[in-house]
Amino acid sequence: MSLLVVGSVAFDALESPYGKVDRALGGAATYFAVAASFFTHVNLVGIVGDDFTEVDAQIFRGRTIDIEGLERATGKTFFWAGRYSKDLNERVTLTTEVRPKLAALDTMNYWIERTNAELRETLKHVDILMINDSETRELSSEHNLLRAAKHIFKMGPTTLVAKRGEYGAMMVDKRGVFCVPAFPLEEPHDPTGAGDSFAGGFMGYLAGCGDKSDAALRRAMVYGSVMGSFGVEKFGLDRLRHLKRNEIHARARHFAKLTQFKL
Amino acid sequence: MSLLVVGSVAFDALESPYGKVDRALGGAATYFAVAASFFTHVNLVGIVGDDFTEVDAQIFRGRTIDIEGLERATGKTFFWAGRYSKDLNERVTLTTEVRPKLAALDTMNYWIERTNAELRETLKHVDILMINDSETRELSSEHNLLRAAKHIFKMGPTTLVAKRGEYGAMMVDKRGVFCVPAFPLEEPHDPTGAGDSFAGGFMGYLAGCGDKSDAALRRAMVYGSVMGSFGVEKFGLDRLRHLKRNEIHARARHFAKLTQFKL
Repeated sequence: MSLLVVGSVAFDALESPYGKVDRALGGAATYFAVAASFFTHVNLVGIVGDDFTEVDAQIFRGRTIDIEGLERATGKTFFWAGRYSKDLNERVTLTTEVRPKLAALDTMNYWIERTNAELRETLKHVDILMINDSETRELSSEHNLLRAAKHIFKMGPTTLVAKRGEYGAMMVDKRGVFCVPAFPLEEPHDPTGAGDSFAGGFMGYLAGCGDKSDAALRRAMVYGSVMGSFGVEKFGLDRLRHLKRNEIHARARHFAKLTQFKL
Repeated sequence: MSLLVVGSVAFDALESPYGKVDRALGGAATYFAVAASFFTHVNLVGIVGDDFTEVDAQIFRGRTIDIEGLERATGKTFFWAGRYSKDLNERVTLTTEVRPKLAALDTMNYWIERTNAELRETLKHVDILMINDSETRELSSEHNLLRAAKHIFKMGPTTLVAKRGEYGAMMVDKRGVFCVPAFPLEEPHDPTGAGDSFAGGFMGYLAGCGDKSDAALRRAMVYGSVMGSFGVEKFGLDRLRHLKRNEIHARARHFAKLTQFKL
């Protein structure tokens, strides 16, 4: 199963306790597509300006990413500047949409607040909603995540993946709850795109294996966390750019060590 | 191996979105001792006032809790009043100390800030430090929990258990990291004593099995989370008071479902 990704390709100016970059290729769809391409074929739909060069496009070459749908328009590419304090929980828009076998949506507070009616309409067609825990609470008006999930299930999605930054992620569906921690890193450099990389790993894995079983969704949660953890190790897409498939599998095995126990 | 618990026995006045109680038996050592008594024999050392009645002491009867060391003094029993908003991360003092085979310490911001030198001296004799993540950061002056753990290991402890409220707990030692989520509850009523119940379950399990292996510590983390989750289900010690051993084991098995996956 291939994956259609609709979202932003952007340039980011980033500042964190670990340093500063003025122009890093970024955007939700970029992180997502690169992360997902380790697992499946990706069709990227997005828009860039005339400042987007062939060098910038290199990030997509040599991967299973089709950029036929990457439109070039006059004017500037979307630009985002961010600064991080030590406490980091930023969120960028990401939409993996349309009506295939499985539709997932990652939204954010901006759309929840400003285009709530349209978001509600979209949610009717979504199977998996991936948002962070504060957005879960905002969308559902429920503080408790289990009650929030029940609320959200009435809106359309059958699965909620609540991303919780350094605390990992929690998946809720009618079968129950599954939790995965964030990979403990001594020096996370840049949280930009972490949630998008998570979403890319999650959906990429699912599309790659073509399986929607509980076991597959749990593995998708792990691969999402794996990709999110690589995403934050360096600025921008630097770590994902040079990532090897065996590193992904090694880290997934490390997640098993991190969480497994025998009673 | 039996367990010596030194800590507070108190009366609490509690208010949460779920209701209000004016005088509930509480105190770190109370929660801890009751939670631990499901796993091992407990010797409780503490002090109560002349308002502490035989009815109050019932909580310890019929359990493997020796209250020979519960001193009765003139004056009032320690009293604590708390109110919880929806976002809850309170912490109460708890000390399981002295020099047996394994010494664990649970401290809090008050002692970190006001008696830092004495705390440092105590930490030299402690094997397992159990504190919440913000206290970990405060004690070590490190935001990152892995770096904070390295710092703390220099102070004496060889194992750090960082309690993270609704996000579960993380154990760090030289062998690596282990994460356990908090049990997802739709209606947590009262977080008072959650961390103490966690500590009681954790240490109680370890003392009960007399094993310090990595596998045993992981199981202790699970039983800690199990006891913490029961602790918050009702006000005060109401849920722990009527808890059955089979309920504990059933919830521990539920934790396996919550976290386990196969790659």
